[in-house]
This record gives sequence, C-alpha cells and structure tokens, in this order.
Amino acid sequence: MAQEKVAVGIDIGGTNTAFGFVNNEGKIIYESSIPTNSHEKAEILFERLFKDINDSFKKFSKDYELIGIGIGAPNANYYKGTVEAPPNLNWGTVNVLEIVKKHSPLPSAITNDANAAAIGEMLFGAAKGMKNFIIITLGTGLGSGIVVNGELVYGADGFAGELGHTIVKPNGRECGCGRKGCLEAYTSAPGIRRTVYKLMSSANTPSELRSICFDKLTSKDIADAANRGDRLALDAFDYTAKILGQKFADFVAFSSPEAIILFGGLALAGDLIIKPTKKYMEESMLNIFKNKVKIIPSALSGGNAAVLGASALIWNEIKKIETENK
Amino acid sequence: MAQEKVAVGIDIGGTNTAFGFVNNEGKIIYESSIPTNSHEKAEILFERLFKDINDSFKKFSKDYELIGIGIGAPNANYYKGTVEAPPNLNWGTVNVLEIVKKHSPLPSAITNDANAAAIGEMLFGAAKGMKNFIIITLGTGLGSGIVVNGELVYGADGFAGELGHTIVKPNGRECGCGRKGCLEAYTSAPGIRRTVYKLMSSANTPSELRSICFDKLTSKDIADAANRGDRLALDAFDYTAKILGQKFADFVAFSSPEAIILFGGLALAGDLIIKPTKKYMEESMLNIFKNKVKIIPSALSGGNAAVLGASALIWNEIKKIETENK
Repeated sequence: MAQEKVAVGIDIGGTNTAFGFVNNEGKIIYESSIPTNSHEKAEILFERLFKDINDSFKKFSKDYELIGIGIGAPNANYYKGTVEAPPNLNWGTVNVLEIVKKHSPLPSAITNDANAAAIGEMLFGAAKGMKNFIIITLGTGLGSGIVVNGELVYGADGFAGELGHTIVKPNGRECGCGRKGCLEAYTSAPGIRRTVYKLMSSANTPSELRSICFDKLTSKDIADAANRGDRLALDAFDYTAKILGQKFADFVAFSSPEAIILFGGLALAGDLIIKPTKKYMEESMLNIFKNKVKIIPSALSGGNAAVLGASALIWNEIKKIETENK
Repeated sequence: MAQEKVAVGIDIGGTNTAFGFVNNEGKIIYESSIPTNSHEKAEILFERLFKDINDSFKKFSKDYELIGIGIGAPNANYYKGTVEAPPNLNWGTVNVLEIVKKHSPLPSAITNDANAAAIGEMLFGAAKGMKNFIIITLGTGLGSGIVVNGELVYGADGFAGELGHTIVKPNGRECGCGRKGCLEAYTSAPGIRRTVYKLMSSANTPSELRSICFDKLTSKDIADAANRGDRLALDAFDYTAKILGQKFADFVAFSSPEAIILFGGLALAGDLIIKPTKKYMEESMLNIFKNKVKIIPSALSGGNAAVLGASALIWNEIKKIETENK
C-alpha cells in the first residue's frame, strides 16, 4: 500500500515550540511540543526539535511519508528564510531555513504566525475556496495575513500585512512598536484590557472587573463578565468593536476581501466582538462595499491552529511547484 | 514585411473620450479624441467612437495590426466589464464590453482610470520591473491602483483600491461619497484648495491666494504661489503632505510596496508635494519599513497617460494569455 504523505508543521513560540504531522486535508496524525528555552540559540532549539521529530516519526514511518517542513515564527521573512530579532527570543537575526537544511533535506518554508494562519484557513479552514480574504489575529498583539488572488501578500520585502500597526489615533496609546496610536494598542487582548481600565477611570459604572488588578485581567475575564451582563465589560467590547470595525472599512477599501476572519484569544469572545464589529464596519463602509464582506471566526481548532497553519504553508508551496510543473 | 502590432487605448472622461494606437513598448502611433456628450447613452458614444477609430486606422492598416482594445473609465468593473453609475456620465449601469463586442471582435478589457494608470506605469512607466507598488492619482478625486506580486489587486468584487476613501479623521471634512473624513477630501486637488481656504480663515498670513475666489482657485495656482515663496501656499502643501504621508505609512503596512507613484494634477507640483510627503511618511513608518519605500512621480507623459494606461491594460491581458498558453 502507498504511504500517505504528511507535512511537518512547526510553531515556534516564546514558551513552547509545537510540531505535528499533518496530511493534505488538515488532519493532524500526531502532535507534540518541547520547551523553546528562549534564552538559548536557535541552533540548539532545532537540534532538540529534530531529535524529537525524528524519534516521534519512527512509529509512523511505515504508513506515512514526510514531504516537507513548514514553520511559523515571529518576525519570520518568507523570502529570506530568516527570523529577524524577535522580541521574545534571544536569537538576533538568524537564517532558520539554513539551520533546518542541516537537519533535513526536505523542502522547507517559513513565515510569520499570522501568515501561516491565513494559509491554514485557506487550505483547511474558514477560507476554503476564497481567493481574497484577510485574517486578523487578536492575541497578545494584532497580526494579519492578507490573501489576494489566492496568494499571500508578502510585499517587496516579505513583511507586508502589519495591519496592527496602522494608525487609529495620531498621538494615541503607546504601542509596543515604539510609536503611538496603533490599532494593536486598542484591539488586541491587552488593548481591551487597557480599555477596561480607561472606562474604570472615566466612569463610575459598577463592574466585577474592578476587583481584578491590571496584571491579572485577561480578555477571557472581560468576555465572561460581558456574558454575565456586566455593563462596563460590554462597553469595553463596544469601544473595541467600534475601532476595529472602522479600521476594517479601511482595509476593505484596500483589497476588497470576501471575508475578514478573526483568530486568536480575543476572537474566542465570538459574537461579543463579531456582531458589533460588523455593525460598525457597515456603518463606516464606502457604499459600493456595503453588505458584501463577512466577518467570521477561524475554523482552525484552537490548540492545533498554529501547527495546522505552519503545515499548510509547506503544503501550499508543494501545490505551487506541482502547478508550475504541469 | 510583418505588420507591427498595436492596441487601442480608450480613455472615457466626463468631457472628452480620447483614444490612441499604442505598440507594446508604449509608443503612441496615433491619438485623437471626440466629445463624450455625457448626456447621451453609452451606445451612442461607442457608435461615434468606433466610426472614428476605424476611419483613423485606415491610413495605418498597411503597416499595423490591431490586437485588442483597452478601456479606462470611471466606476469600471474589470470582472464584469461594466461601468456602474458613474457620477459624471448619464449612463446608469451599463455593460461596456458587450457594447464593444458589437463593434469589434478583438479581445477587450476595461478597468477604472487609476488601475489603468497602474498597469501603464508597470509596462511603460516608473514601475517597470516592479512587482509591488501603489499608484495614487491626485486629481479631482484621489484614485489608487495597487499591484501585488505583479498583478493588479481587484479584490472579490473588482472594486479594490479605493484608498481615497480610507478615513483620515472621523467626522472630518464632507466627502463626495457621502461620508466624512476621507483622504480624498484632504489631499486631492480640491482637497488642497479646501486647505488653503481653511488656512485663510484660521490665520492672518498674507497670501496672493486671498485674491482668488474659491471656484477659480486651482492646485496649479497654489503650486505657483508656493514656488514664489507664498507662506500660506507652502503651509497648505505641508498640511496636505502630512496627511498624505501618514496615510502612506498605513498603506505600506498593508502591502509593503517598493514604491508609491504619484500621478495627476496635484502630483505635477513635484517636489513641493513629494519631499514633505516622504518626510512625513518616514516619520510615521513602522521601523521595519523605514527607508525602503520610494515616492516617485509618474513616468507616463501627461496628455497621453490615460490612453497609455488603457492600452497597457489590454497588452497586459494578452501577455497573461500568452504566458498561460506556454
């Protein structure tokens, strides 16, 4: 019997590095993770990682064939194969694909987490069959992956799709990027926490969130409170959705996507964030785009989503090569 | 001797409709124009137009072969071949390519003026060899054409690239689109005129422009005054460039272009608009994009630019078909 083909998907995070073997329909055959040990050099991580991958694959090697390696990592550059000074890894700028080549002769590719998620949605998730869509990841930051004509937008330098760093308010909130007023400072998970604290300072609305200190408050706490009818938590979602919806109208004017897909921690709040964002987006939209663009949640299941995305990256590369060779 | 191939480029404007015969290097063999008579139906315009095209081509038909028809028109939809209720033509929504087919069996394509200009720059102008760039037309409105991976971004519905209708200031200046605060209301030719009048109302700065009434003031008047050192005119350019530069930083975060190309009436002000826009763009830019993106003027010569762009559209289509058939 022919062996089934699977790709390795690797998701490098500040704390853990997850990997999995994924077939071309997005089914994960096996998945595991190791600590990233972010103070170590990249070379050491990949030595440990490939030992684990090779050991794990032994029990599958009779029935499965590995066809490639896809990697999602912060600050990754698809064109160069590099990861460039990620804030949460002590790596500096390093050529990850060159390191990978020392461990495996298989085709490999790397991109940032949000771009990997976009390709994951396109191959296995909510964007199946779509040629034009945007994925927005609402997590610790606000990441984005933009697909146009069925292809990810990398731009001239490989860093396109930094929608979290478009400006909402000149001289607004401080952003981690060193500038002020970025979308990310308002509508990421820490962004809605900042909004809760802003509302607690400006209004007297009673709220269960007043008993949680800033460092402990999570976007899940805020969603839970909102679901219990907490006025201040609901106001925080409304404020967040208004800013997000207005910016989405701008993004639509750029690439006119079929859908905007929400992914990540804050997106788990579901209709709490999706419904008002859609309302504000429509209110802000140029007439010709009204009622054309869906806002939908990710269809990649939570825990595995990053590994699925990373594996989709290399499945997509292989598909491109096959198409060119036809 | 083999005949040289030329495409027909047609530019439909509110007042005149220009056409030309253009070879695959952007050389215009012949060009002319007829009045659009915007109150007439589209069918009548194309009847008159094709009579003129056919008559004009007679003297070239020995040496040249027509290979296709490219059209630039307001509110044109590339996918559907339609022009949808343009504000300056009494057409309603009409399928232009169907009308064209009644007059000619040649391949034809239509898109809006800014998209045609973008393809013109890519094939014949300032964007030769670029795969990722944005063209911004600063005329009566602010139009835009976005090229990603060497292809024009049309989006899901064919209307992508409406950057003139991204928001600068919520509840800002009234825009022709019925909303408020659009970029177009600030940085088009009428936009800088509004800025001059704003500055005349808020400051006492003496200015030669105070003797020109609103209806008569053109962006050329403002540029001429600025070139003579008129403080208020210079302030108007600075204000315009600041808004434009800040928005350009957002556009770069989207598609990370190699260059942004300026086209149209206000762009003729040259360094008066380009230099400060570049300065403000760099100041507003996310670190990873700093000093990577050029701002350059169009390299399509003024009068013929729209006809060149329209002809480039069909040359580009023919190139795509040839590539696919290889």
